[in-house]
Amino acid sequence: MNNFQFYSPTEFVFGKDTENECGKYVKKYGGTKVLIHYGGGSAVKSGLIDRVSQSLEAEGIEFVLLGGVQPNPRDTKIYEGIELCRKENVDFILSVGGGSCIDSSKAIALGVPYDGDFWDFYGTGKPVEKALPIGTVLTIAAAGSEGSGATVVTKEEGMLKRDCCSDLLRSKFSILNPALTQTLPAYQTACGATDIMAHVFERYFTNTSDVEITDRLCEAVLLTMINETPKVIANPDDYQARANIMWAGTVAHNDIVGVGRDQDWNSHGIEHELSGLYDCAHGAGLAVIMPSWMEFVYKHNPMRFAQMATRVFGCQMDFENPEKTAVQGIACFRKFLKSIGMPINFEELGAKEEDIPVLVEKFGLGDGKTGGFVALSSEDVASIYKIAAHAKC
Amino acid sequence: MNNFQFYSPTEFVFGKDTENECGKYVKKYGGTKVLIHYGGGSAVKSGLIDRVSQSLEAEGIEFVLLGGVQPNPRDTKIYEGIELCRKENVDFILSVGGGSCIDSSKAIALGVPYDGDFWDFYGTGKPVEKALPIGTVLTIAAAGSEGSGATVVTKEEGMLKRDCCSDLLRSKFSILNPALTQTLPAYQTACGATDIMAHVFERYFTNTSDVEITDRLCEAVLLTMINETPKVIANPDDYQARANIMWAGTVAHNDIVGVGRDQDWNSHGIEHELSGLYDCAHGAGLAVIMPSWMEFVYKHNPMRFAQMATRVFGCQMDFENPEKTAVQGIACFRKFLKSIGMPINFEELGAKEEDIPVLVEKFGLGDGKTGGFVALSSEDVASIYKIAAHAKC
Repeated sequence: MNNFQFYSPTEFVFGKDTENECGKYVKKYGGTKVLIHYGGGSAVKSGLIDRVSQSLEAEGIEFVLLGGVQPNPRDTKIYEGIELCRKENVDFILSVGGGSCIDSSKAIALGVPYDGDFWDFYGTGKPVEKALPIGTVLTIAAAGSEGSGATVVTKEEGMLKRDCCSDLLRSKFSILNPALTQTLPAYQTACGATDIMAHVFERYFTNTSDVEITDRLCEAVLLTMINETPKVIANPDDYQARANIMWAGTVAHNDIVGVGRDQDWNSHGIEHELSGLYDCAHGAGLAVIMPSWMEFVYKHNPMRFAQMATRVFGCQMDFENPEKTAVQGIACFRKFLKSIGMPINFEELGAKEEDIPVLVEKFGLGDGKTGGFVALSSEDVASIYKIAAHAKC
Repeated sequence: MNNFQFYSPTEFVFGKDTENECGKYVKKYGGTKVLIHYGGGSAVKSGLIDRVSQSLEAEGIEFVLLGGVQPNPRDTKIYEGIELCRKENVDFILSVGGGSCIDSSKAIALGVPYDGDFWDFYGTGKPVEKALPIGTVLTIAAAGSEGSGATVVTKEEGMLKRDCCSDLLRSKFSILNPALTQTLPAYQTACGATDIMAHVFERYFTNTSDVEITDRLCEAVLLTMINETPKVIANPDDYQARANIMWAGTVAHNDIVGVGRDQDWNSHGIEHELSGLYDCAHGAGLAVIMPSWMEFVYKHNPMRFAQMATRVFGCQMDFENPEKTAVQGIACFRKFLKSIGMPINFEELGAKEEDIPVLVEKFGLGDGKTGGFVALSSEDVASIYKIAAHAKC
């Protein structure tokens, strides 16, 4: 096990009607003038923005509103938010939405007190030194951004999708009401579930040995997702299954399932070029990429994939031939994704095989390699896109 | 799933040599004059207190020392600590030891700024309004106090063991170096492992249904303990197994494995009277009580015990007769405890059957009942002690 730090100071407030408490929590964490940042019209139509506004009013907290965050959140909206916050002397950002909305909120939070362009922090590793405090009211179980210090946004010029990470960007509080996710269409629900499982797998396939506790916690989240996701696809109003998935989504990404080990985030990186280019859902892109990446790398450590196959998908271990068990596990994962309505190849996603050179170019490795479970060259990335283009169940 | 709040703001710093960073963390969290609180001579003899002192000195932080915390920490030492902190204007408490030392530190932390008797907060539910900040350097994987807001101490007069809980008592940081636990004798190691497993079981047996994610996380910790504990009993220097157990101990008790459900802490309560009366190790007492409590209550929900039996101990599910599977699981647990050298009945613990009326009297239910998975009367508690008195593998 590697040395590590684990720090997850966010106060999570989970359950029915908890959005009505957001005013109380904004006050607890010092907010006096709030930007309510949200996505499409559904948060307005459902009455959620009204309930949140009333909760702030009840505490005597002023606020301004900025909606219109798109999936794969754009820099243009972030510049708009930064300008509005400065003009209105906003000192707290309240995100009401899913991961895109939270990530946009984090970008605004770090941009407001910064003299230069907020984009300076994205994809560069430049350390964040100051940020407005943020809180979240989550409406989609997927990105895990409500419990992480990470933010991923897209620069419209060139559709570049880049990330930034800092403890200063962790939510002070996150309000998680599973009932708010009950109106989500099955496709978006499944995209979210795929993202959650991918967050675990990116941490599970590691070259660090002897991390039994972290392995077991990973498997706990994966087993939960396999058990609960089909329930909500069949019955969107299943509150209990929604609740299990929502909390699993947070646990999957606050790094409790990742500590003590090297991690591999190449599938996320390879997917980001797909959703960057085609503006598809991140989870759908991951459903196409993640099992394809697995097929490309599993021979590096078949026993680790066989462990996943047996512990998570209940495959029978073939001790004579662990590679066979590994391959079965990967097939089970893809089959599961298909069963919840996810695309599993380029055609189903709306991507084109002839774009592979463009995707690889945008991925930007050049003659270099990425680190991770298996270090990948541009040629390897092209091979993974190729597997993904033709994947079948 | 019940509504819940989850808040675990402690910064965990895990791995080899991390105790040398404690000065840096005391500084980060605002300490300028520190009480180093520790237990027996082993922390001095091993050089740990020297290393911790040097780390504070390197940051220019003054400190005073107070050792001598006993297992089942006593009020007398706490009064001594409170007086010393007031006299020396201490503003930060650094606990260097195991759960007893941390619990004693928490009692001092809440006692220093309080006008009355610190004991007022124990067993009464009186809310803590102010406490000095604390940090911990952990030397035993067991109590989970390094990641919780709880403290349990013993009043010498009458040997009363009572608890208190507050977010204000959570460590600012916890330094966890598994190598520091390598010198622990097998018996103490096994006591710690039993305590860790008990912290999970107290949360696992619940009347709340549909908590798959929390169930799975519980099982993850239990599976880890079953896999790793025999390794350290066989080879005390196994750093990796020590590391898995140490982190499992923290995860078992910061409530990530307990959220969203009613919990049952009766086994802990019933055990506290044993370690209160006989001054035996808490873990050893739990090894005697916990399976006996299980035998007394499993018929209330055999399927939950059967789930534990199959998922944790690998028993075969008997769908015709789930009670049989439940009983098998409990037997597996007791057999496991025996295999790691724990006592499993009164005689092996050094307790006396004729003391049962005294134990029940001290438990203090009178004609009332405790809540939990199964509400217990004084008669029920006596029955559990009786099962424990005669338990066999």
